[in-house]
Amino acid sequence: MKPAVKRIVAMPVLLFYFAVLSQTTQIKIRQYCQANQAELIEEYREFLSIPNMAADSLNIRHNADFIKQMMEKRGIRAELLFGKSSGTNPAVFGEIKVKDAKHTIALYAHYDGQPVNPKQWSEGLSPFNPVFITAPLERGGTIINYTKGDPINPSWRISGRSSADDKAGVMAIINAYDALVKTKVTLNNNIIFFFEGEEEEGSTHIGEIFEQYKSKLNSDIFIIIDGPRHVTGKKMVSFGVRGDVNMYLTVYGPKRPLHSGNYGNWAPNPALNLVQLLAGMKDEKGNVLIDGFYDDVVPLSASEKEAIAKVPGIEETLKKELGIQQPDGEGKPFLELLSLPTLNINGIQSGNVGSMASNQIPTKAEAVLDLRLVKGNDGERQMQKVIHYIESKGYHVIDKDPVDEERLQYARLIKITHGTGYNAQRTPMDLPIAKSVVQAVQSTIDYPLVLIPSSGGSLPLIVFEQKLNAKVLSIPIVNYDNNQHAENENLQISFLWEGIETIAAVMTMQ
Amino acid sequence: MKPAVKRIVAMPVLLFYFAVLSQTTQIKIRQYCQANQAELIEEYREFLSIPNMAADSLNIRHNADFIKQMMEKRGIRAELLFGKSSGTNPAVFGEIKVKDAKHTIALYAHYDGQPVNPKQWSEGLSPFNPVFITAPLERGGTIINYTKGDPINPSWRISGRSSADDKAGVMAIINAYDALVKTKVTLNNNIIFFFEGEEEEGSTHIGEIFEQYKSKLNSDIFIIIDGPRHVTGKKMVSFGVRGDVNMYLTVYGPKRPLHSGNYGNWAPNPALNLVQLLAGMKDEKGNVLIDGFYDDVVPLSASEKEAIAKVPGIEETLKKELGIQQPDGEGKPFLELLSLPTLNINGIQSGNVGSMASNQIPTKAEAVLDLRLVKGNDGERQMQKVIHYIESKGYHVIDKDPVDEERLQYARLIKITHGTGYNAQRTPMDLPIAKSVVQAVQSTIDYPLVLIPSSGGSLPLIVFEQKLNAKVLSIPIVNYDNNQHAENENLQISFLWEGIETIAAVMTMQ
Repeated sequence: MKPAVKRIVAMPVLLFYFAVLSQTTQIKIRQYCQANQAELIEEYREFLSIPNMAADSLNIRHNADFIKQMMEKRGIRAELLFGKSSGTNPAVFGEIKVKDAKHTIALYAHYDGQPVNPKQWSEGLSPFNPVFITAPLERGGTIINYTKGDPINPSWRISGRSSADDKAGVMAIINAYDALVKTKVTLNNNIIFFFEGEEEEGSTHIGEIFEQYKSKLNSDIFIIIDGPRHVTGKKMVSFGVRGDVNMYLTVYGPKRPLHSGNYGNWAPNPALNLVQLLAGMKDEKGNVLIDGFYDDVVPLSASEKEAIAKVPGIEETLKKELGIQQPDGEGKPFLELLSLPTLNINGIQSGNVGSMASNQIPTKAEAVLDLRLVKGNDGERQMQKVIHYIESKGYHVIDKDPVDEERLQYARLIKITHGTGYNAQRTPMDLPIAKSVVQAVQSTIDYPLVLIPSSGGSLPLIVFEQKLNAKVLSIPIVNYDNNQHAENENLQISFLWEGIETIAAVMTMQ
Repeated sequence: MKPAVKRIVAMPVLLFYFAVLSQTTQIKIRQYCQANQAELIEEYREFLSIPNMAADSLNIRHNADFIKQMMEKRGIRAELLFGKSSGTNPAVFGEIKVKDAKHTIALYAHYDGQPVNPKQWSEGLSPFNPVFITAPLERGGTIINYTKGDPINPSWRISGRSSADDKAGVMAIINAYDALVKTKVTLNNNIIFFFEGEEEEGSTHIGEIFEQYKSKLNSDIFIIIDGPRHVTGKKMVSFGVRGDVNMYLTVYGPKRPLHSGNYGNWAPNPALNLVQLLAGMKDEKGNVLIDGFYDDVVPLSASEKEAIAKVPGIEETLKKELGIQQPDGEGKPFLELLSLPTLNINGIQSGNVGSMASNQIPTKAEAVLDLRLVKGNDGERQMQKVIHYIESKGYHVIDKDPVDEERLQYARLIKITHGTGYNAQRTPMDLPIAKSVVQAVQSTIDYPLVLIPSSGGSLPLIVFEQKLNAKVLSIPIVNYDNNQHAENENLQISFLWEGIETIAAVMTMQ
């Protein structure tokens, strides 16, 4: 803290000052990362090698212990926070207090990852055996024969489950702090570290953990390091997130699988029933046809609309990169579509395809739906709309596999269960501390930072508001083309280095 | 041959005579099977333990060698017949010639099995580790802790891939011959043994093998031992089969899997596109809506209709057993529906369901269709109707994965490939040798044999007609509830013993 500066309040000068201060810090941080890249990456590879599905509690614990050790090695006193319920995956907590702290800044990332089907990964890639690739393999990338100590090209990517979502967040937060300490930059703020282990299964117990440890988690701003930067590659701050809830549907056919010849034309096929049910939920332009699906949506405010208008258009880039000739949404802008609720088919399966396909009438057909929620939506209410739709198609809805009597009573039977979800959250764009964060991130770049009222993705940020009275912002740090949630997930190394710089700027913000 | 009898031509007397003759033989055969059950079952378990997917050429060869050894052990000179093409799975051939043979009877079974997903089998059951169960596990059956030599209850089932379809056929044919020899019953007929190894992948090379070995395979009647007996449990002779061809559909989404939040509402979901495409192919009563789908069907003849009318109704039994409240087909009789072509969804997959589900927009969605063909249908023509339908829905059809230019040119892209299939076959019900076979089978039972003009299932019997000028009949021997083509396949042991009796009666027929 430099008292002399405190008198200067004119905004342009202040901004200039921050930029200078931050640039010096930034150069130090950058040099630190370059000098220590081999060790940092080695540690990250080790971290990524630990399987991290939320349901795999043994490995989840290995991950939590690994993070705790990483923190302690860097002088951060760390502890595992468990919820009251049995089977809670621990959050890893740590804190650093400084004298005359300006703010208390809490930083969040999650260390669990989405479920993974190793068979869907490209040859040579494997979810928990991280390797370097020159670029995504489908875009002509190749696997690098890397030995520790080889120079690391920042355009390389490291492949593995959670390399981007969201162990990158954990790595960047811990190392931003470490880099500041090692390069002797004064921290202006108290720092709280909070790493969740259940995010990908809906943050089932985060509310419980918040209630139990509320006093430890008191902050001026809770900053979420998760999700991808803008498609243009630009740094971004997001003021909100969509909510999310999953629905699991199972439609029933014959009690045992039937030979498709011996019973074909007589025995109903559950795959056909399910596709007919799902087909009617949306039109061919991607609009949801379920009654009242868009009814609860709170429209964007004037300032949110204005922010959206400033965000660079990405549709043409995306279309080309993703090979999409005709996007859904009838030409509406990308961010406008992301401010509406969704109904997505995450997966569908009945019988088998490929080499295991056989000529049968399957016993059941399953689908997983993903409902993204926006401000105004309530997860329960949104699911009820889907259930009403399904009932209107003649289905009898049950919540477990049917007994014989139910099979013989109802021509159309469907089991519907759902995950634990959460509603959307949006922080007002004119909140003073949010502006400080924005300035800190802006100070690390020489182009206008992308500011969006809400990301398309989801995090249980509403729970932060409800349980901790926290103010919440998201600063995504990873490359957008990271195959998050799917096979061949990867992180471009330069984004890790820049993420560390971004977080260091936030940790030292005025 | 007993000359004294030759003068007796009046049908009722002749029938009575056959019945007596056959009953004596039948008792001998039954006693033989009982006395040798431990060894027979042990050999069958060993046979079932050899994996037998047609694509697994190494194990297919093990199966063929195993059959050859079984035959040679029983004094049948056996050889492997390969087609000219490389990669042909061998057929196992053998023959027995007798003096003054009345007929030459060729007997067919196939030793390859449908692809199998071991994960879908119930706990304790495994496709290539056969065990005894008291009944299907889903109907309360339990696994039996069997040791060789324990008495075998004929109501038990042996579980394993191809236990019913169609290693049971191979076992029954070889052992029917062996039982006749061991019990010193005079064979009246030359016997040709022919065991195919590619039936479940569409009998790709059977035509080639037939052409090459035509002279060896000359018969008065080719009898197919495959498929299940009638649902009532009654023995059955079938005069025809449906043809069959598989179509493989792949619809494309974004080039890489996308986070369903970050792109949801903008990026089209291939699972949705595929379900919408499939949904329109049939109405909710199971009628195919594709233009001209039923146009080529040759209607049943008067005698075929008459035969169908005599077949016991099974709909109510099936509904109860399979848990079906409302069958497809608007109440038409089962066998009438089986005389129409089908369009069945064998399998559909996009993304994942269950524990591997993740919140993503998948890159592709796949489905496998099964088209059963009836007399009058041509497989190629039938597939063209489906392709025209798909094109009418705005799809551009390709036969390999799309290149970038295609993705950007067409909003709707689908890859369509197909398997090698074959058309339907029907033998006239008044063919004299067919009547002899019917009499032989009838002589082993005290209720009217079920006679059907065509089975619902498929076999490449049209190729037997075309390449060998053969007359063809099918005698199914296994229990109908055998989970053929699917998980938990099983054979009820009593059906094996009765199958041996049936075939022995045919081998000794006048």
